[in-house]
Amino acid sequence: MSRYERLSIKYKNGQLQVLDQTLLPHQERWLLIETPDQMVDAIKRLAVRGAPLIGVAAAMSWGLWAQSGAPLDAVFSAGKSLRNSRPTAVNLMNAIDRMARAFENSNHDRSCLLKEALAIFDEDIELCEKLAQQMAALIKDGDTLLTHCNTGGLATAGRGTALGGIKLAHEQGKRIHVYIDETRPLGQGSRLTAWELEKSQVPCTLICDNMAGFLMSRTKINGIFVGADRIATNGDTANKIGTYSVAVLARHHKIPFYIVAPSTTLDPECHHGDQIPIEERSESEVRGQVAPTTVKAWNPAFDVTPHSLISGIVLEDRVWQLT
Amino acid sequence: MSRYERLSIKYKNGQLQVLDQTLLPHQERWLLIETPDQMVDAIKRLAVRGAPLIGVAAAMSWGLWAQSGAPLDAVFSAGKSLRNSRPTAVNLMNAIDRMARAFENSNHDRSCLLKEALAIFDEDIELCEKLAQQMAALIKDGDTLLTHCNTGGLATAGRGTALGGIKLAHEQGKRIHVYIDETRPLGQGSRLTAWELEKSQVPCTLICDNMAGFLMSRTKINGIFVGADRIATNGDTANKIGTYSVAVLARHHKIPFYIVAPSTTLDPECHHGDQIPIEERSESEVRGQVAPTTVKAWNPAFDVTPHSLISGIVLEDRVWQLT
Repeated sequence: MSRYERLSIKYKNGQLQVLDQTLLPHQERWLLIETPDQMVDAIKRLAVRGAPLIGVAAAMSWGLWAQSGAPLDAVFSAGKSLRNSRPTAVNLMNAIDRMARAFENSNHDRSCLLKEALAIFDEDIELCEKLAQQMAALIKDGDTLLTHCNTGGLATAGRGTALGGIKLAHEQGKRIHVYIDETRPLGQGSRLTAWELEKSQVPCTLICDNMAGFLMSRTKINGIFVGADRIATNGDTANKIGTYSVAVLARHHKIPFYIVAPSTTLDPECHHGDQIPIEERSESEVRGQVAPTTVKAWNPAFDVTPHSLISGIVLEDRVWQLT
Repeated sequence: MSRYERLSIKYKNGQLQVLDQTLLPHQERWLLIETPDQMVDAIKRLAVRGAPLIGVAAAMSWGLWAQSGAPLDAVFSAGKSLRNSRPTAVNLMNAIDRMARAFENSNHDRSCLLKEALAIFDEDIELCEKLAQQMAALIKDGDTLLTHCNTGGLATAGRGTALGGIKLAHEQGKRIHVYIDETRPLGQGSRLTAWELEKSQVPCTLICDNMAGFLMSRTKINGIFVGADRIATNGDTANKIGTYSVAVLARHHKIPFYIVAPSTTLDPECHHGDQIPIEERSESEVRGQVAPTTVKAWNPAFDVTPHSLISGIVLEDRVWQLT
């Protein structure tokens, strides 16, 4: 496999493909992405998800399509619509803004858009490796861990953030056991993390989100590791809905609670978690197949965990100790 | 409707029927129960659920069938198998034990079994009325509440415990809004409570279990009311899985957290929550349709909330203040 053929994104022979994550774990189908509109659609319906992966995927689709000779205003407008496809993840905005700056600085040399996208792709792979090294150092032989959502090779262009560290600790021969939160309403834990950990042969057990507290009260959990979609300068962290509950439960049970994220997730413009916009998605996701179709539902896709509930933020070059 | 025609159980013209709750909210189908074996099956697969309702339903099926002339050892063995159909709810054991004592004391007069079962049925209806009165007094006009699982007319032979109080407060004209935890893996909140509150026209919003913490951090929740399957003499309370997490989150956000249960739920033999057996159900319920079929799962049906996290226990005759 070439450097750009990853678990969830492939760039090969000038073509960009992404794994349709909505079909996992039962089906592995790749989507050929030829236009930014197709990528916006894939991002919106969560076929492509995970803050770092979204940034790389959006960047690649913009960079590739810009070579096609579309008028300049269409190129700008494509970048804008990619940038707006999800509101919470800062990686996406960073990636598009960085490309836009390079495009301006090169006097609209289209090749520099793809060059910049590939640089973002490369950096994400590297960041994941460094993050995994930092994080695995916090995991001891025999540890029992808990994670939420999916932060692996399905959430990044590399080996992952929190799940990357877990997989590396396993590769290092540490005997670990990982509890996986289901992560309703979309089941990134049950569908994606369970699939990815089984594929990597990491011993794991799936639980429903509401079992995490009782688990902590009855089983010794040594550490909790989750990802981040955006981190404010004070350490407040937006991540998949449910993260905040896990953080409160961790504090109550005196369990170390770590955020694992590349420094590209830090938002220097955002000084407090209250400033992070929280995407609210369709009520039908919460209702699923089981609730009355008429009942009102609330469906925030993310929540904000205040820095006071976070033990530390694992970055690629250091652990930012918070409490 | 006669006194014994309720939302989820009917005794009419000598016949016993229970509503198959596994088919709600999409279908309302009644099951004719002619033997204790059929009731054991209905209880095990949760067609009949809710600690008080299970007690009444099991009692009625035993009392009715005992009239049929089955040999005495078959009557005893039917009582035993009903008593063992669910391990956590104490109401079931209390109901069967009470009937067995009356049976012994009457020198095996079979008619006393049905008489005792009807007394248990009557008492449950009365208990619910009294509980609802006690609880509604704690709810103020304009309150926003949260509940977990189903504790209404689908969980009791009467109007319910925690949900009975909520419905009464609404009938009293208090403007309340109720957030409903989905209650995975079986969705008693999304399937049953949402159905029951919509039927009663109580304004409500469904959330996934993992959203409760974020909700508490962003919306003023005035009180949390849940039921109980068994209460130890120190106030430790076993209830549907996820209750403990909600209690920890409530404490963190300084929200009053109440258990609402008839005194039949108090277990005088049990002095500490650790002594309450926790039923573990099939892993496939946690996996659902979405997780890899091979992944290990943990599926406790209940958890235990220590008395230190409970504001008070609303009983039919008083509120037992705990913290």
